[in-house]
Amino acid sequence: MSLSAEIIAVGTEILLGEITNTDAVTVARALSELGINAYYQTVVGDNPDRLYDVIMKAKERADIIITTGGLGPTFDDLTKQVSAKAFGKELVLSEAALSKIREYFKSRGKEMTDNNIRQAYLPEGCTVFDNDWGTAPGCAIEDGGKILIMLPGPPRECKPMVKYRMVPYLQKLSDSHLVSHGIRIYGMGESEVESKIQSFAEEMENPTLAPYAKDGEVLLRVTGKAKTEKEANAITLPVIDKVRGILGDVVYGVDVPSLHEAAFSVLRAKKLTLSTAESCTGGLLSKLMTDISGSSEVFYGGVCAYTNEIKMKLLGISPELLEKYGAVSEECAEALARAAASKFGTDAGIGVTGYADPKTGDEKNPGGTVYVAVFLCGKVYTSKIYQPMSRDLARGRAAQEAFNILRREAEKL
Amino acid sequence: MSLSAEIIAVGTEILLGEITNTDAVTVARALSELGINAYYQTVVGDNPDRLYDVIMKAKERADIIITTGGLGPTFDDLTKQVSAKAFGKELVLSEAALSKIREYFKSRGKEMTDNNIRQAYLPEGCTVFDNDWGTAPGCAIEDGGKILIMLPGPPRECKPMVKYRMVPYLQKLSDSHLVSHGIRIYGMGESEVESKIQSFAEEMENPTLAPYAKDGEVLLRVTGKAKTEKEANAITLPVIDKVRGILGDVVYGVDVPSLHEAAFSVLRAKKLTLSTAESCTGGLLSKLMTDISGSSEVFYGGVCAYTNEIKMKLLGISPELLEKYGAVSEECAEALARAAASKFGTDAGIGVTGYADPKTGDEKNPGGTVYVAVFLCGKVYTSKIYQPMSRDLARGRAAQEAFNILRREAEKL
Repeated sequence: MSLSAEIIAVGTEILLGEITNTDAVTVARALSELGINAYYQTVVGDNPDRLYDVIMKAKERADIIITTGGLGPTFDDLTKQVSAKAFGKELVLSEAALSKIREYFKSRGKEMTDNNIRQAYLPEGCTVFDNDWGTAPGCAIEDGGKILIMLPGPPRECKPMVKYRMVPYLQKLSDSHLVSHGIRIYGMGESEVESKIQSFAEEMENPTLAPYAKDGEVLLRVTGKAKTEKEANAITLPVIDKVRGILGDVVYGVDVPSLHEAAFSVLRAKKLTLSTAESCTGGLLSKLMTDISGSSEVFYGGVCAYTNEIKMKLLGISPELLEKYGAVSEECAEALARAAASKFGTDAGIGVTGYADPKTGDEKNPGGTVYVAVFLCGKVYTSKIYQPMSRDLARGRAAQEAFNILRREAEKL
Repeated sequence: MSLSAEIIAVGTEILLGEITNTDAVTVARALSELGINAYYQTVVGDNPDRLYDVIMKAKERADIIITTGGLGPTFDDLTKQVSAKAFGKELVLSEAALSKIREYFKSRGKEMTDNNIRQAYLPEGCTVFDNDWGTAPGCAIEDGGKILIMLPGPPRECKPMVKYRMVPYLQKLSDSHLVSHGIRIYGMGESEVESKIQSFAEEMENPTLAPYAKDGEVLLRVTGKAKTEKEANAITLPVIDKVRGILGDVVYGVDVPSLHEAAFSVLRAKKLTLSTAESCTGGLLSKLMTDISGSSEVFYGGVCAYTNEIKMKLLGISPELLEKYGAVSEECAEALARAAASKFGTDAGIGVTGYADPKTGDEKNPGGTVYVAVFLCGKVYTSKIYQPMSRDLARGRAAQEAFNILRREAEKL
């Protein structure tokens, strides 16, 4: 029997739609990797009665409860008080926690306010989770075989607290190993993917195979459960091969986080370098590349040329080309890709130009039309996308298209 | 008595941490603007029994239930079946919905698969919410004074469905008006903000004043409730003035979504133009600027110069300066800012250089050190930030710092 868990996020700001509950993603992913089943997530406001009810309900249903948020220094932070009550504990001042908080402020040259002292009160007998990334310590309490873990809300604190505090604490408790791989697909819709794998997926019990559509891509999640990681992989990996066989070239990677990281990996492995010349994507592609740690091995830089003048002046695009074909054209995308590679002295260059905004455009190229071109070792590959839904989607889709072409063609080299 | 609502997201992929529940933000914000109280959000997997329990619990607690997800064409999409059961309805084929789905595929030149037909089955007697952004129609059903609204899961469908279908449907039901304003603060921590406004905030009941820390900023949310929008604003707006008076210059705007949009608005109002020259932020600033619809009025473009060679070649940074001060220096940031403004011919230029990655850096400038410089109408303003937590945070913080300086100084012109 494997353990079950529930995640409770505490914060009126989530209920009001002020902030996105990204902590739930962090905690859920960690639980999933530990082979702990999470059947529910709840969000509740900074209200003691409702929070108490939610915790008691979770205590009925799950072995482990993880709360995020409500550990701050302000008057509406009450997760500790309410959790302690639900688990029959008192809050006591932890001198160790207090001196850590003092240290935190001292090392940053900041002044500690009185309300920060509240953060050093913790449930009696708890396991303290030191917070090296902020002021609020986390903790774990137990009662009658049930465990409650409290984590701070700010994602930059919650993330490392999950990785370095919660996961090691929980690792001892789990008895089965779950292995999960994500097969990434670009260029085929969810319905079509599903149709192609349906007969195969439906008869499977362990591992399971489930399709998720996200951001113009499809993710096929293969999840296998066994006593050990090795056994779990032994039943899971053949499924990946089978899916690759069925779907072919649209599979752009397994367990890679994104198309641009897939492209980066191929370029790095082949010791190829890249630069960009962007019009309507306005720096998005170069931002994505430089999101990657170590990107300077591959990526030399880019130009965001938002006006025709800059396209000519900084990138040497000829006025005749702009006159003849217009800035939004396959020809201009190709010229941008070539110009990037030449100006930056790289093996590959990406050029993007279009009308990203649905409110813009002309007769030939309505808003949402974007041309991408990839120059790679002497050859140019172009593509046109049409995504009239929104500026963001058109730009994102153009980046995906460009990085997919780059990854596909570089793989062949 | 105002209405209460609960949001239920359906999807195992959320429980596994595969995707972030951004639909909840979309729905929550819309409810909040309608003055409908949302006290709980729940996430539950693609499991009929657990989904049924969650819906029944929500039906007890709230007047309105909104589900997102589980309307897709695949075998694990079961929100309609379960919701219909919980509200005592049968699913029937809607010919109108079916022909809409057929049209959707036809207009995109895509093939319709058999499982798409399932999406045209809807609860009897429901109000159909046409989906112009995807294949799955939404709907609303009623039973004994309780309402359940089903919306599709993909955010690019959910967002417009909320705005154009759910909001108009709910607008008729609400009897009180809630007005909410966000006071945005950069450059003062949550504890300090809270200390300064505490005595003032604690004695308030309507409107309420609540601080939220997010992404290195603080948001103070002022929320007032009254019979009409005018009355709600009449009690809310004086609180904003009072807070501005207490906090001063660190308030960068009210109801502006971000620092870069605040900077953009000031520049546009003053008819000033901007360009960027980025090293470690790698296009982030230009990407943020071009996220804004209509950005070309203000933003001419940028160079992402990831190597010293490109800094010299494309931006004309002198080898002597790089030799003497290094690429990571206040002097280089200033030279980049000036070079951007000069190359692009803009009134303002932003230069950014640093070691964003905590794993990089040298003795003088440890990883996480970033220099930003803002050139504006002949003057240069510089700042140094130190954010050693992560690459993303250092880059984000540098962008905030640069846009804050720009907005602050441009306001004075």
